[in-house]
Amino acid sequence: MEQLFVIKIGGNVIDDPSLLHAFLKDFSGIYAKKILVHGGGRIATRIGDQLGIVSNYVNGRRITDEDTIDLVTMVYGGLVNKKIVARLQSYGCNSIGLTGADANVMQAVKRPVKEIDYGFVGDLNSSMLAAGTWELLLEKNLVPVLAPLTHDGQGQMLNTNADTMAAVIASVMSAKYRVRLMFCFEKKGVLERADDDHSVIPSITAQNYPLLQQRNILSGGIIPKIDNAFKAVEAGVQEVLIGDARDLLQNTGAEMQGTLIT
Amino acid sequence: MEQLFVIKIGGNVIDDPSLLHAFLKDFSGIYAKKILVHGGGRIATRIGDQLGIVSNYVNGRRITDEDTIDLVTMVYGGLVNKKIVARLQSYGCNSIGLTGADANVMQAVKRPVKEIDYGFVGDLNSSMLAAGTWELLLEKNLVPVLAPLTHDGQGQMLNTNADTMAAVIASVMSAKYRVRLMFCFEKKGVLERADDDHSVIPSITAQNYPLLQQRNILSGGIIPKIDNAFKAVEAGVQEVLIGDARDLLQNTGAEMQGTLIT
Repeated sequence: MEQLFVIKIGGNVIDDPSLLHAFLKDFSGIYAKKILVHGGGRIATRIGDQLGIVSNYVNGRRITDEDTIDLVTMVYGGLVNKKIVARLQSYGCNSIGLTGADANVMQAVKRPVKEIDYGFVGDLNSSMLAAGTWELLLEKNLVPVLAPLTHDGQGQMLNTNADTMAAVIASVMSAKYRVRLMFCFEKKGVLERADDDHSVIPSITAQNYPLLQQRNILSGGIIPKIDNAFKAVEAGVQEVLIGDARDLLQNTGAEMQGTLIT
Repeated sequence: MEQLFVIKIGGNVIDDPSLLHAFLKDFSGIYAKKILVHGGGRIATRIGDQLGIVSNYVNGRRITDEDTIDLVTMVYGGLVNKKIVARLQSYGCNSIGLTGADANVMQAVKRPVKEIDYGFVGDLNSSMLAAGTWELLLEKNLVPVLAPLTHDGQGQMLNTNADTMAAVIASVMSAKYRVRLMFCFEKKGVLERADDDHSVIPSITAQNYPLLQQRNILSGGIIPKIDNAFKAVEAGVQEVLIGDARDLLQNTGAEMQGTLIT
């Protein structure tokens, strides 16, 4: 099977122009098929503040009302996505910016209202991925750059978690490719001690994961990422790496730095 | 040769949700290959005002400074483009939103600074169109929806005139398709008397165009559109129609309403 890298960059990389540009240059240098999924960054909040759009949170989760979905559609789907694409083009990487609505590459279901109405948030399932279109783009050597947005098929854009999007794409594409899913952020990997960059946990497996959770080592934010990673591995993804955006090129090889989940 | 419609909608259509939705429904019903190019609308100015981005004009032309290119990238390339795409998807039309940077479909050259520095504005020439990628999308029955943005190949997005983009695409694609270029707006066509919807000039030719200009019948805004149309016809486009967005479906047939330029 041919190698495919599904690479997700987080908001802290996007918010730091010099880090972002170095990352995109490295990304352009990967001589294999690749897909980039990007998160949002703080810029939507900043622009939202200027526009008087108040961010509402319930249990730490942002509520996506009508103003907010418009905001993230323009900031993530327009500003962030197109800046990344234009920059990649300048490095000779023939990227194509997408939301889930474009070519219908990823539909989602608006999250059902139970105790909380999250608003225009999309929940994914892998049956809603247009696998043929993804393959077509990859075969034509186009490099998809996906913003964290989907649509419901009824004309409504939906705010969607970028980690989950990356995991679902990696899972579905593993039927045709040997997939390495990489979550790239500003740390060296999953750390045992948050303030110690040398305390990277090199490997998380089904065996040591419950233990790590019991010892309360893992911060809240990383747990959904790891859960997504396990689901992806179960679905056929070869390996998942959580690592530093600055180690991208090294981490496309056999000698990886960061936290490997297999 | 197979038929291709290159259809441009103007800002006044975009600014009117019910007109826009009716138009997009009709557009979805066109059973031929098609490309949609959209302008901006007043929404960028409104959001820019809220963000404190001051619009600068010289000789009636907007100057695109750094804040303004970010603004139009997010509003045209994100908000307007993705809303159109999601809506088309709901009508069963498998559209894909693009700027010129995406898949490098349309590069441009930043307008040289002479007496006026227009800022981040792109000038087009037809050699910078990735004809093969356009054909690929059309052959795969994807419907390109193009925002009025290009890039310079050096990582910079550029504000670009949607009429010109539509004319250039139509011209280049006429090597492979029988192309009808349609400028759709909120009037019945080019009018002899601005306040009389029944005064549509049915046909503008190289013969009567100088006469119409001498008689000062044509308003300033329409002249660049007609000049673009003549260039497109010279480049091989079968016909150019300036007509009402509401007459779209009728105007894809043989009995056209509006102003025909051949």
